[in-house]
Amino acid sequence: MPSGPTPVTQATAQAAPRWPAVFATAHATLDRQVQERLQWPFEADGALGRLATLARQLARIQAGSKWPAGSLRFNEPQLLVFAADHGIADEGMSESPQEVTRLKVLKMLSGQSPVTALATLHGFATTVVDAGVATPIDPPPTALPTVQLQSRKIGYGTRNMLLNRAMSTEQMHRALQAGMDTVRHLPGNVLALASMGVAGNASAAALVSRLCGAPLADAFGKGHPGDTPENRRQLERLFTAITRHRKASHALDLLAAMGGFETAMLCGAMWQAASERRVVLVDGHVAGAAALVARAVVPEVMDYLVFAHRSTEPGHHLLLAHLKVQPLIDLSLGGGQGLGALMAWPLLRSAQRLLER
Amino acid sequence: MPSGPTPVTQATAQAAPRWPAVFATAHATLDRQVQERLQWPFEADGALGRLATLARQLARIQAGSKWPAGSLRFNEPQLLVFAADHGIADEGMSESPQEVTRLKVLKMLSGQSPVTALATLHGFATTVVDAGVATPIDPPPTALPTVQLQSRKIGYGTRNMLLNRAMSTEQMHRALQAGMDTVRHLPGNVLALASMGVAGNASAAALVSRLCGAPLADAFGKGHPGDTPENRRQLERLFTAITRHRKASHALDLLAAMGGFETAMLCGAMWQAASERRVVLVDGHVAGAAALVARAVVPEVMDYLVFAHRSTEPGHHLLLAHLKVQPLIDLSLGGGQGLGALMAWPLLRSAQRLLER
Repeated sequence: MPSGPTPVTQATAQAAPRWPAVFATAHATLDRQVQERLQWPFEADGALGRLATLARQLARIQAGSKWPAGSLRFNEPQLLVFAADHGIADEGMSESPQEVTRLKVLKMLSGQSPVTALATLHGFATTVVDAGVATPIDPPPTALPTVQLQSRKIGYGTRNMLLNRAMSTEQMHRALQAGMDTVRHLPGNVLALASMGVAGNASAAALVSRLCGAPLADAFGKGHPGDTPENRRQLERLFTAITRHRKASHALDLLAAMGGFETAMLCGAMWQAASERRVVLVDGHVAGAAALVARAVVPEVMDYLVFAHRSTEPGHHLLLAHLKVQPLIDLSLGGGQGLGALMAWPLLRSAQRLLER
Repeated sequence: MPSGPTPVTQATAQAAPRWPAVFATAHATLDRQVQERLQWPFEADGALGRLATLARQLARIQAGSKWPAGSLRFNEPQLLVFAADHGIADEGMSESPQEVTRLKVLKMLSGQSPVTALATLHGFATTVVDAGVATPIDPPPTALPTVQLQSRKIGYGTRNMLLNRAMSTEQMHRALQAGMDTVRHLPGNVLALASMGVAGNASAAALVSRLCGAPLADAFGKGHPGDTPENRRQLERLFTAITRHRKASHALDLLAAMGGFETAMLCGAMWQAASERRVVLVDGHVAGAAALVARAVVPEVMDYLVFAHRSTEPGHHLLLAHLKVQPLIDLSLGGGQGLGALMAWPLLRSAQRLLER
């Protein structure tokens, strides 16, 4: 069922970007064709396990174009990492100082990070988007040809959500639009979405708690017996923040109040990629929180999202359970910078191969 | 600690093959070097999750040769699938008639199976070993160049373990030796071990139940409320069989009493591969049961085994828990013919890449 462009609310309609139409992919005839093609002689039903489910999802996504005449085609896979800083970092939400976001971006640009090393191995071109890092970023002279920096800075970090909405509605709209624009200008039909930014997990936990209706302590993974006083203080402050924004209820209001510039761009990127029938590999906690927002506004977007892995973040576990999604990989990877998406990618290639008969 | 060649027991020493020495791989200096190499700037501890554990295991395995001067080297990965039939199939242990084993071997040889399709994709040469299929096998004329058949037939299926020991001690010794010989003549330093054979899961469940000290119902996954009468009958018959062999206690006596020719060959293959410091990817339930036997005799073999995935077989879950092993992949794949090992392989390549700095 097509979901036409919809303004957010009356109040914000004027400034709101118009997001593209995303079509649901369910297709009974196609499903039967896929099932037939996956039935190898003398193989038991279910022998292919979740590879079969994955193959069906991928076939559905590409059904608009080449399937069933051909088989799945993947070209020029892209890893898109949105980096931004969070005002809530002022409340001591992370062990890392905020400066680390910029330093990690620089390491990624120079290929000195696990993610860029593995992106090269798995054939992904990488684009790091400065969605709102707290300091200016000068790309290092040793930058790799396969890693690009794109500046889409909405601000020098969001505001502290304990004191204000993290971003204004206008900033959020610009960030959603920037996410859409970035995808529109990227080649390829597979997009891995990831993020970077100190205190991003605190922001994502706040969103997950509200959007899944779960206690903040569960989403943030703090406040349990045995926690350090520091952990308890972090939880208290984040709790104060979400209490401050308790009147926000629409997903986009929550995004503006507690999300990050990278979260909003991820959300826009998901809409755009889905509207173009690209396969979207969703990496970690922050990208998962963005998926919750994207889905609240455009439910059909879910059909295009392949949840790559389950990270160590409690909020990530929670949101996957809420969405009733079993991710492809479960390797206790920390972070959400793209490692999990890259680890899942060979499974997509395997699913593709199983349909080539 | 080296484990020298050891005869099985006094009683069987004369006919017993002498298995090769397998050395434990633990190496504190190496571990520190690996840990340092995996510490990327500004990455949190644990960011690499179980990829780090995997990288360490692989480095330890290859420490005897090129590490730490170079990094990990993988060459000519091999998939070795042992096929055999089980006498216990006479008791209606599987929905498939025994003939299916031969038919599946033929499909694999002609490349018309998911496993051969994915072996090609992931760069594995495949050897299907006829360890004891119940009928002669004539390789099809359309055989692929990357898939070889090797005949090592110990017999036309094992005997029915409800009535007899599945194999004689002499047959078991020949099978262990054949497993070792097969590996000795294969190139490459990565070996994926898998199996095929109707009723192989019943045999493996019997071994898992005894070697892990767990109720047969848990290993076989039958006998629960709501089971069909057919399931209950299968459990009863298999229970009668393991009761018949209750006096067997040494792992190799259990192997002869309740294992298959393919199980014994897998066990020999693990010893040989470990003695040559090859990386061993262990696929499914039957290969896992073989690992239990291999480890009972030569504990150091465990250092070389990478448990690739968790299949849908309850006995497989049970043995992984018993070994305190978290497999790399968990995609609800059925069978144990190599799919899981192939899905795990790109993770080994990623671990390798992370150490290349």
